[in-house]
Amino acid sequence: MTRPIRVTVWGENRHEQHDESVARIYPDGMHSTIADGIRENLGDGAVVRTATLDEPEHGLTEEVLAATDVLTWWGHAAHGEVSDEVVERVHRHVLSGMGLIVLHSGHWSKIFVKLMGTSCTLRWRSDHDRELVWTVDPTHPIAQGVPQPIDIPAQEMYGEFFDIPAPDELVFISSFSGGEVFRSGCTFRRGHGRILYFSPGDQEYPVYHHRDVRRVIANGVAWAASDRAERALPTLMRYETGEFFRGADYAHAAPEIAEARAAAEVRDA
Amino acid sequence: MTRPIRVTVWGENRHEQHDESVARIYPDGMHSTIADGIRENLGDGAVVRTATLDEPEHGLTEEVLAATDVLTWWGHAAHGEVSDEVVERVHRHVLSGMGLIVLHSGHWSKIFVKLMGTSCTLRWRSDHDRELVWTVDPTHPIAQGVPQPIDIPAQEMYGEFFDIPAPDELVFISSFSGGEVFRSGCTFRRGHGRILYFSPGDQEYPVYHHRDVRRVIANGVAWAASDRAERALPTLMRYETGEFFRGADYAHAAPEIAEARAAAEVRDA
Amino acid sequence: MTRPIRVTVWGENRHEQHDESVARIYPDGMHSTIADGIRENLGDGAVVRTATLDEPEHGLTEEVLAATDVLTWWGHAAHGEVSDEVVERVHRHVLSGMGLIVLHSGHWSKIFVKLMGTSCTLRWRSDHDRELVWTVDPTHPIAQGVPQPIDIPAQEMYGEFFDIPAPDELVFISSFSGGEVFRSGCTFRRGHGRILYFSPGDQEYPVYHHRDVRRVIANGVAWAASDRAERALPTLMRYETGEFFRGADYAHAAPEIAEARAAAEVRDA
Amino acid sequence: MTRPIRVTVWGENRHEQHDESVARIYPDGMHSTIADGIRENLGDGAVVRTATLDEPEHGLTEEVLAATDVLTWWGHAAHGEVSDEVVERVHRHVLSGMGLIVLHSGHWSKIFVKLMGTSCTLRWRSDHDRELVWTVDPTHPIAQGVPQPIDIPAQEMYGEFFDIPAPDELVFISSFSGGEVFRSGCTFRRGHGRILYFSPGDQEYPVYHHRDVRRVIANGVAWAASDRAERALPTLMRYETGEFFRGADYAHAAPEIAEARAAAEVRDA
Repeated sequence: MTRPIRVTVWGENRHEQHDESVARIYPDGMHSTIADGIRENLGDGAVVRTATLDEPEHGLTEEVLAATDVLTWWGHAAHGEVSDEVVERVHRHVLSGMGLIVLHSGHWSKIFVKLMGTSCTLRWRSDHDRELVWTVDPTHPIAQGVPQPIDIPAQEMYGEFFDIPAPDELVFISSFSGGEVFRSGCTFRRGHGRILYFSPGDQEYPVYHHRDVRRVIANGVAWAASDRAERALPTLMRYETGEFFRGADYAHAAPEIAEARAAAEVRDA
Repeated sequence: MTRPIRVTVWGENRHEQHDESVARIYPDGMHSTIADGIRENLGDGAVVRTATLDEPEHGLTEEVLAATDVLTWWGHAAHGEVSDEVVERVHRHVLSGMGLIVLHSGHWSKIFVKLMGTSCTLRWRSDHDRELVWTVDPTHPIAQGVPQPIDIPAQEMYGEFFDIPAPDELVFISSFSGGEVFRSGCTFRRGHGRILYFSPGDQEYPVYHHRDVRRVIANGVAWAASDRAERALPTLMRYETGEFFRGADYAHAAPEIAEARAAAEVRDA
Repeated sequence: MTRPIRVTVWGENRHEQHDESVARIYPDGMHSTIADGIRENLGDGAVVRTATLDEPEHGLTEEVLAATDVLTWWGHAAHGEVSDEVVERVHRHVLSGMGLIVLHSGHWSKIFVKLMGTSCTLRWRSDHDRELVWTVDPTHPIAQGVPQPIDIPAQEMYGEFFDIPAPDELVFISSFSGGEVFRSGCTFRRGHGRILYFSPGDQEYPVYHHRDVRRVIANGVAWAASDRAERALPTLMRYETGEFFRGADYAHAAPEIAEARAAAEVRDA
Repeated sequence: MTRPIRVTVWGENRHEQHDESVARIYPDGMHSTIADGIRENLGDGAVVRTATLDEPEHGLTEEVLAATDVLTWWGHAAHGEVSDEVVERVHRHVLSGMGLIVLHSGHWSKIFVKLMGTSCTLRWRSDHDRELVWTVDPTHPIAQGVPQPIDIPAQEMYGEFFDIPAPDELVFISSFSGGEVFRSGCTFRRGHGRILYFSPGDQEYPVYHHRDVRRVIANGVAWAASDRAERALPTLMRYETGEFFRGADYAHAAPEIAEARAAAEVRDA
């Protein structure tokens, strides 16, 4: 990508309003801290804005998403308040080529669950575990510039079994001082989009101030930005024999079933 | 599995009613032919029943699914008529350990799209292409007992790009006489369940009478039957430090957020 | 596999002779203990024999390998004494369909290094770490019948980065009380053969007496036994247009380059 | 990578000397044509040199490899003449972080066979098949800027089963007019290095003059260039409890087995 990557950092921004302990760690909201970490690492290579749950359309209008190369997502207590319409919109943009970085408790966000197709459940405990984040794919761009391991003094524990599809690439595995392990850095390709799930980061601990965590998120943003020339949704098309480049859409190709398929398309879109 | 595998073959069973050309090939419905192919190959190793769209709850009640080790799915023109409630039920059973074999145009069924998280679109043409199905994983149990390649004289063409997650295992790749290729045998693990997508089989061609196609479907059924002792949905649980085996569910572990999570659970279940 | 699986348990059997501490734990050699664990779990389903380094041809003649469905491998201090000829023979049998279970310090055996193509290096420490073995693929036959996690009170630590190819399936991840993590259960398919690497097990600790470790090794044996009808090495063949089933070998197909290729074949065989 | 990528294009350069038909297509050798294609696409982003079999040490001295970010490899009739010492050297550099692009009949080169651990055999025919190269991973940087499919009017046929490990990423699948399919674009990560195998390209056909083939090779070069700061071989190290960053090598850590391990290291290095 030769121009700066356009990043939208989405935050639920509820704990920061209601929990004094969280507000002390993140006085401007976790989304602001995450955004700062990306700017700090990518510099002129990124233009970063933020959006939050309580804005109209959660700050994720069609216009915003169309102008977003990579979206980062942090949510926790209010997953259920995210409107299905916005989830469908984000889903469509991811399949069309927008990068997506899902952080920590975002594992149970509607958008992540929809993209994975699984329950995305896990084991957990919030008890000041030390988390060590080990690189298991040292060739991966997301793992560059961080120590082996990343040492996070206090963190919520997330443990296996984490019910996700086997990741396309497993980049990080974490251990916790209680003895649990977690696939903490996982990539997925869905449609034309690239997805990173990266688990460190809880509202009760200052994880998004951690230098190495910020570096990984910034690396993830750079990696998730599409190399494709245009954003486009994969589409079902009919091709005549010997014609590889010009396909017909359903309406023209098979009128008798177009209606049923169109109904399905509406549902999926 | 030491007892016979309990198989439910699900068929949309609409083309067979309305299209004379289809009824000629499949006078008892495609589901009957598919079921016969499984019986033919697995013998006493399987007990096979069928279910169809127009039965109450599409023949897929909680009782039927609870007594089904592996479900096979063929649908095409009426994906939109499958009730969301039944789709959620099947989804829950797959994540809990029920095997699922998705056939041909089932690529656009609600259940497959939900499990994949992608658009599941592809390129296609119905023009009597010859399909050759090549084994690319000769160690896989699903690929045993069939020639290299399987030769299907006439078939609908399904071509790439097929918008699915990269399969956990790629077992078969097909070529078509028009020059297209397709990842025609793909496995996926989701939750506690195993899924096979196998593309040969269209209502307009006698593909489910083909010896090798029947063998692959039967192999898939045997492979997809769970080795797990019990059917159980992966569940989010809290574990105290040093306690690895007894977790607490949300209601008891974190009452303040239990409500929001419970809402999410209802949505996902 | 309808007949009993024919298993050969290979052991280096040196520590047991020279280190009193090891002999106390494994008075009949580690190979005997490993063999007992397989018999204990598979019963009539397996016929198990052992072979050791100091036998002629290390006990791994062509006849023995031809009559072995699954070979297990434990070596440590004497990797360099294993003859290259025997390594080539084992390699050929694995690519032809023999299953292989590589245990613990076998990560640096000639046969494993040759099959992986990487350095197979790792980080380690022998300091009585507690190892917890977590299942991350609960659908896998190798993970059946063991607790989550397997608890091994004292073990040598093996840690990441473990320089292996990304496994085809990652079944287990271990944590150690020192904080390290390790991909401790990994499957690989090579040629017509299935390979499991399973790391628990050091000569200084009674790991092969551990009930769950024995279960995993037995599960691995059952999984690695080939489903293929015959043992055969993948072979380069020339096929005429339209002829899919009868190929010509190099000598007949391309005499001018047959010599160079044959030289390569000798090297690879 | 902020400086230009240093590319070494290696060619066997024998057919070009002895076969008039090949010399007509590649008057300056295939390596020159491949090098031109990389320059054409990467411009100032790459500095490209060539090396051939008949140079001293095949043109691949320690100095040359140390100054090479990405090596491309084309060989065919003289695989057996490549010295084992050079193969070990290239292998060590790949595991240390050098990128490697293996082209066409390089599938049977010593270096590729050593990195894969398999037989790397396939089915083939040289009979002017049309090859269509289909993208199955449209998010991959290697697949950018080429049509779906790439149309190669005449090519040698390479078909499945191709005995390689399941690739980390499957980018391209080819069909041939004779009906065969082939996994024609495969990535592998080994040690700290990235490897692309890309099959189009035979000495009898002008494939390396094809615009899209040249684009893919150049994309592959850009992708394979390491993001790591330094070239370094993965090394076995001992770490004390609580000490994550400073490991001890074998000589200091475990003198009693250092000798055997050192012997193994010499073999592997």
